[in-house]
Amino acid sequence: MKLYLTANSGNSYKVRILLSLLGMPHERAFVDTGSKAHKQPSFFALNPRGEVPVLEDDGVVLWDSAAILVYLARKHGGEQWLPVAPGPMAQVMQWVALAGNEIQFGLQYARRGILHGRWTAGTLEQGQAMARVALNALELRLKDHSWLSLERPTIADVACFPYVETAPEARVPLDPYPAIQAWLARCKALPGWAERRM
Amino acid sequence: MKLYLTANSGNSYKVRILLSLLGMPHERAFVDTGSKAHKQPSFFALNPRGEVPVLEDDGVVLWDSAAILVYLARKHGGEQWLPVAPGPMAQVMQWVALAGNEIQFGLQYARRGILHGRWTAGTLEQGQAMARVALNALELRLKDHSWLSLERPTIADVACFPYVETAPEARVPLDPYPAIQAWLARCKALPGWAERRM
Repeated sequence: MKLYLTANSGNSYKVRILLSLLGMPHERAFVDTGSKAHKQPSFFALNPRGEVPVLEDDGVVLWDSAAILVYLARKHGGEQWLPVAPGPMAQVMQWVALAGNEIQFGLQYARRGILHGRWTAGTLEQGQAMARVALNALELRLKDHSWLSLERPTIADVACFPYVETAPEARVPLDPYPAIQAWLARCKALPGWAERRM
Repeated sequence: MKLYLTANSGNSYKVRILLSLLGMPHERAFVDTGSKAHKQPSFFALNPRGEVPVLEDDGVVLWDSAAILVYLARKHGGEQWLPVAPGPMAQVMQWVALAGNEIQFGLQYARRGILHGRWTAGTLEQGQAMARVALNALELRLKDHSWLSLERPTIADVACFPYVETAPEARVPLDPYPAIQAWLARCKALPGWAERRM
């Protein structure tokens, strides 16, 4: 199993968290985005989006972090991280979708703009407004639940964590969201949770 | 089973397509977005995002179109529209994720901006650039496959269809994408495929 990643990518971090929770040995291939390695034909052959992460395993190539979480959870996690019953599975995928929508295009893009000057999908204010939609949904859920989808941690929590934790770097303070702050701490306290820094 | 929707929402259309393919009877509640009914407390109680579609069924409330597709496919479609084996399930979810990411924030947002003057996540040019990332990925896959994920239609095709079909309304012509055009026609020819117009 080979994971293409960068050290700073939050979407790669999602995959590292789950691999660590599952205790899965894997090879890591660091993609040199500084020299645009992810925009070369050899990388586009792996991932038509030209982004990390990408997972290769047993001839399967997956180029979307949500799909990689689904794959690893189903293959190596039994029903613990992604149950297959319709209701619970959909409850998990709902928050995984939020991680790819408002969290990605709100929190991640605003942070990326601030840190790297890349504004490819709206202004800081637009990103922050979208971020607040996501954070309000999270806070509402977490006010009276420990985890996002079920009564235990799932890939929903893994998928939402990386860019919610860095919300302050998108200049969206987490002070108004005490339930989110407590949830971030619960996530980090899970046995096997991966450090962000590599 | 009750679906909250609007007649013009492409995300609602995804759900209508799958319900129609599955032949599932259901109640429809049209949300009057013109009077901002989706931004009222009663609707936020159903969906903290304040958007359509929302599905209510047997006490389960789902407020994300991808999650609703997962739910319906798992509950009423056996393994036909969403298999549970790790590789095939992840292959399906990868394209469902693309539908919620580049297709949503590229094709849908550019179209919405043009049609309704709402530019909440970037300019027309930014939306079109993101749209082309998605369309290039689709075209590459569809050049030598009939369907997006597997050798049969799945919720991946259902999820990607609505805003790819309306790409020209986002001023992204589909002429450079013959495989996508053929796929759109194959989708519409499936027995039970729902009409866009209600």
